[in-house]
Amino acid sequence: MLDQSTICAISTPPGIGGIAVIRLSGKEAFAIADMIYESPLTGKKLSAQQPNTLHFGAIKSGDVLLDEVVVSLFKAPHSFTGEDIVEISCHGSLYIQQQLLQLLIANGARLARPGEYTQRAFLNGKMDLSQAEAVADLIASGNAAAHKLALTQMRGGFSREIHQLRSELLRFAALVELELDFSEEDVEFADRSSLIDLSTRIATLLKKLTESFHLGNVIKNGIPVAIIGETNVGKSTLLNALLNEDKAIVSDIHGTTRDVIEDVVNIDGTLFRFADTAGIRETTDAIETMGIERTYHQLGKAEIVLLVTDISKDVQHVFDRIVKIRKKITGQQLIIIANKVDIAPAENRSKLSVFPLLPREKLVFIAARSRANLDQLTQIMKRAVDFDAIGPEEIIVSNVRHYEALTNALKAIEAVISGLNTGITGDFLAMDIRECLHYLGAITGEISTDEVLGHIFKHFCIGK
Amino acid sequence: MLDQSTICAISTPPGIGGIAVIRLSGKEAFAIADMIYESPLTGKKLSAQQPNTLHFGAIKSGDVLLDEVVVSLFKAPHSFTGEDIVEISCHGSLYIQQQLLQLLIANGARLARPGEYTQRAFLNGKMDLSQAEAVADLIASGNAAAHKLALTQMRGGFSREIHQLRSELLRFAALVELELDFSEEDVEFADRSSLIDLSTRIATLLKKLTESFHLGNVIKNGIPVAIIGETNVGKSTLLNALLNEDKAIVSDIHGTTRDVIEDVVNIDGTLFRFADTAGIRETTDAIETMGIERTYHQLGKAEIVLLVTDISKDVQHVFDRIVKIRKKITGQQLIIIANKVDIAPAENRSKLSVFPLLPREKLVFIAARSRANLDQLTQIMKRAVDFDAIGPEEIIVSNVRHYEALTNALKAIEAVISGLNTGITGDFLAMDIRECLHYLGAITGEISTDEVLGHIFKHFCIGK
Repeated sequence: MLDQSTICAISTPPGIGGIAVIRLSGKEAFAIADMIYESPLTGKKLSAQQPNTLHFGAIKSGDVLLDEVVVSLFKAPHSFTGEDIVEISCHGSLYIQQQLLQLLIANGARLARPGEYTQRAFLNGKMDLSQAEAVADLIASGNAAAHKLALTQMRGGFSREIHQLRSELLRFAALVELELDFSEEDVEFADRSSLIDLSTRIATLLKKLTESFHLGNVIKNGIPVAIIGETNVGKSTLLNALLNEDKAIVSDIHGTTRDVIEDVVNIDGTLFRFADTAGIRETTDAIETMGIERTYHQLGKAEIVLLVTDISKDVQHVFDRIVKIRKKITGQQLIIIANKVDIAPAENRSKLSVFPLLPREKLVFIAARSRANLDQLTQIMKRAVDFDAIGPEEIIVSNVRHYEALTNALKAIEAVISGLNTGITGDFLAMDIRECLHYLGAITGEISTDEVLGHIFKHFCIGK
Repeated sequence: MLDQSTICAISTPPGIGGIAVIRLSGKEAFAIADMIYESPLTGKKLSAQQPNTLHFGAIKSGDVLLDEVVVSLFKAPHSFTGEDIVEISCHGSLYIQQQLLQLLIANGARLARPGEYTQRAFLNGKMDLSQAEAVADLIASGNAAAHKLALTQMRGGFSREIHQLRSELLRFAALVELELDFSEEDVEFADRSSLIDLSTRIATLLKKLTESFHLGNVIKNGIPVAIIGETNVGKSTLLNALLNEDKAIVSDIHGTTRDVIEDVVNIDGTLFRFADTAGIRETTDAIETMGIERTYHQLGKAEIVLLVTDISKDVQHVFDRIVKIRKKITGQQLIIIANKVDIAPAENRSKLSVFPLLPREKLVFIAARSRANLDQLTQIMKRAVDFDAIGPEEIIVSNVRHYEALTNALKAIEAVISGLNTGITGDFLAMDIRECLHYLGAITGEISTDEVLGHIFKHFCIGK
């Protein structure tokens, strides 16, 4: 499964910088580095040096000097990949980075595939699969909440507990299957009450984890926000004002290894996603007509609904809009935006202020064009999902693959419990247990296929 | 002159990657790192560890874990800056990079200014000024020739020789000035023939170096190429074809710390600069009329002139063009491009083939639209300035500041020589020697002002 080639890649971000780091991992890492490295002080080979040490030296291609570098040495198994690693810290010019990489390849290394270092760490038992996946999430995380999630998962997260419960369940599986071999004798090796107890513990954990996915997904991918309202009430102006809120960070998010994100804005470390609301924005005119179903399907995916209204004109019409939209809202936070407050008659504002709000509703007066009161709006949006309320030890699932495996494992263990309660036969019981074991093992990678691994690691950046 | 604060910056290229390196340099580097670093294995402080070693550990902000990192330790004076250095290799997410930087600042470090690490290396005597400048050139160098130039200069280049000759000259300066103190006695402490000998050696070196600047500048900034020709002969098509030759490398060059470059193309490692020829291209129609002077002023800056002609029509007109342009060319390589060869009558081609060429002229038949024979053209352009002919030990000046200082030093030393030959008085002689010493010292930084240093280092990237 693990190929024995020595791999190399630029591990630092692409581009020009003060320094760049090229990482070499595998059995031949020291031998290959020694072919191009020369120590001006000691003349010693890198392979003769102690691990976890730093060495200044020259990189040469034959007689031609390429750069003066600092080399870091790590010896298997005490390295990120669990293999011998040589990291070369060179001057960060594109020319040097490319030439150095070509030199390593010319001397027997192979260019690493995306995520191959982390994949090797997994295959060498340095981390389980869910931890390996967290490495990519950690690198991609652009805000505090997503960073915390990824870091917790990288350090073990729920996988240790899953692994532990799975081991216990595996023992029961063996006993139940042993019973099948002695089926004529009517023996019972697996204690049914202990098995119910274990299965219930597993089900409780899986329920908690699957339920956390909603929050985890929102943290990782942004809080979905729908902006709705009639034509000319200021929806586009508001969206542009929100997107401009922190443009630098928005542009940072583009170009990551994750799928391209559109209209995502990071406001003080909280991600909001306006991506899927374009349809709503465009078909608003049709809300009362044919497009209504499609529009509200989109609305159903939102966590926050921003109803934009124009209070510079007919305030009774605004009341009607609120009443109508309430019928379509199920559980989302509704924020009623009274726009154009700068040109609205004062009495309109007064009338709207006394309009009775439902518990999950908020009313904000803004002027999108001049950005007046935009802060108040973003504060309310931020409070809609309160990430700070997450406890330090709380474990939250944010990975779709894990969520699917956990959901399937939960279904299987519920079948085990109901089977035990209704006295199902041993062969069916064994099947349900096996299925649960399979899905639990898929999370940690105790059960994995090349296809699954290929899919996971192809989304990594090269050099990690 | 050297401030004592501990500085920090991200030294790897900006953006997201597998890893990023944050560098901390100064007296408090270890103390600050110890405030946020925790070793899970030994619990040992970084300040208790040996230099030139690597340590795995956790970065914490209070109780909150920020990342798991590898730390490199360097002790003064054995480091790049000559100060204590701690390099933290963290996961390459933007969030982690920014948080870690803020954490270091919160614990007493200061954000480094552009080039401040290299500036400290200079101020701590780890390198002279011309070597420090070469560090920026090395990072910016995008091709083999520019890389070689920068690396040679970074490793000492001509500055050791300059320093040596300047020391000798300084001794003479002291003797000549001593004579002035005893001017009534008519003594001669400084041996005039030895001083002429030294001055001649200095002048010879300075002449060689200033003469090399033309080549150095071309290597560093690209070979200036002018494309000229009448309307509709295919100038734009040719330029686009040349620019597309290696588009990826072109886009790499943008966004470096150097001034923005337009229309520069890297063909097999040789830079060609079409930047200043826009005027020529646009005013071609006016060549015979009012715009002629301005156009040929531009032409005078070119190293290579590409005369584009259309041979599908009147070949006699092409002959006339060549004859006319020859009168305006002084020393440049003239390449006559017979374009539209694909739709030209065969006899036109035959006629042009027997047209007598001058020594510094070449004739190429191409079809710019279909890129036919474009390779032949780029090969001829590459041979126009043969970088491969530069000897391995040859020293070439590519820095404008050095060129100016060398030119001024040369003027001064020539004044010294002519003064000695004409028996100038000691006080004038001393002045000329002082001036030469000043300019020689400016190159290596033995004489430097805050203004000069500020100007040099502000063009560096942050983190170097």
